[in-house]
Amino acid sequence: MKLIKLNASVTASNEQDAEALRARMKEAGTLLVNVMSSPGSGKTTLLSRIIRDLSDLKIGVMEADIESDVDARRIEALGAKSIQVHTSGMCHMDAGMTAAAWEAMETKDLELIFLENVGNLICPAEYDTGAALNLMLLSVPEGDDKPLKYPLMFQKSDALVITKTDAMDFFNFNPEKCRQSVLKLNPDIKIFPVSAKTGAGMDALESYLRESLREFT
Amino acid sequence: MKLIKLNASVTASNEQDAEALRARMKEAGTLLVNVMSSPGSGKTTLLSRIIRDLSDLKIGVMEADIESDVDARRIEALGAKSIQVHTSGMCHMDAGMTAAAWEAMETKDLELIFLENVGNLICPAEYDTGAALNLMLLSVPEGDDKPLKYPLMFQKSDALVITKTDAMDFFNFNPEKCRQSVLKLNPDIKIFPVSAKTGAGMDALESYLRESLREFT
Repeated sequence: MKLIKLNASVTASNEQDAEALRARMKEAGTLLVNVMSSPGSGKTTLLSRIIRDLSDLKIGVMEADIESDVDARRIEALGAKSIQVHTSGMCHMDAGMTAAAWEAMETKDLELIFLENVGNLICPAEYDTGAALNLMLLSVPEGDDKPLKYPLMFQKSDALVITKTDAMDFFNFNPEKCRQSVLKLNPDIKIFPVSAKTGAGMDALESYLRESLREFT
Repeated sequence: MKLIKLNASVTASNEQDAEALRARMKEAGTLLVNVMSSPGSGKTTLLSRIIRDLSDLKIGVMEADIESDVDARRIEALGAKSIQVHTSGMCHMDAGMTAAAWEAMETKDLELIFLENVGNLICPAEYDTGAALNLMLLSVPEGDDKPLKYPLMFQKSDALVITKTDAMDFFNFNPEKCRQSVLKLNPDIKIFPVSAKTGAGMDALESYLRESLREFT
């Protein structure tokens, strides 16, 4: 498994870098999905499940972390192409860093690449990574009030995956209250309640990913 | 309940501001505890429990959030002095902002003030707020691998509170593995596993807070 250390990009415009990367990935026939959430919301577990379920697709994962390579090792064990990015202490990925990580993967053959962004519900929402799809996770134990407190992430995401729904009875999480708060911030967002553990709800999310891939490429 | 909107401080040195605030709070006989964690780790629930349990102490809470006032309202309902700080989108509090929030509370009579920092396991660790005690929370559903991925927060904290321990059987969390990783990063850190729901472990944490207050003032 490859590990690269990246620093914040020093360019005139992150927006321009992001647009350029999106265009190049479209040409390569690769859908880049930026996966964002708080630490411990279940990003790696969700991606592991998707990799197993969508085994007919060529999938790669960029794991962005401040330290460690535990997530990239979990992904690699599933046979998917993975690369570990260390962000030099940075709390988010930008478009230049994402482009560098794609180069370092040394393949243009993948159909679907997930960028598992740094666990952070704030800063990653402020940077366009060049992804064609922005996916955020909110786990049930975090609580249904998070849209009120971290609105930008919910506004910038194309889809919200509510994870760990198998823990719904254990925690005081009101899915309808959450849905209402989220739709007030972002009326167009798609919402997928799932449990990667039991498999509940995974079909709808995976169909959405397939459809997004078809539409983009 | 008072709400103030603050911007990042524009000063020569956050470290100097922090030292100055610490000195002034010591003089006032107030222990400031900076409470940091990921979103949804249970900061407000823990503080609510502590306010009820330590009802003989004069306690105040500064709630720092990007948006909303849900946390400050919860605290106020318990009869504690509370102020809601909006951080103008910022992902952390600095010492100047903390000093401004203290002024806005308009009382120097409190013995214990909790600063509930913005939910973020990365950026708040980089800024000294002027607190005498840095407390971090890690909730069981987040997973025992977090010390490996967010080391700075564990290094900068005086104490780690492992929250939601009543959910231990539901999630795959190994307390001993977590403890070992944390002690490797910070051999002096105090570790308190608690459940604010059942009350388990709260006594030890509350004794530690009382002792810290006595030592500081």
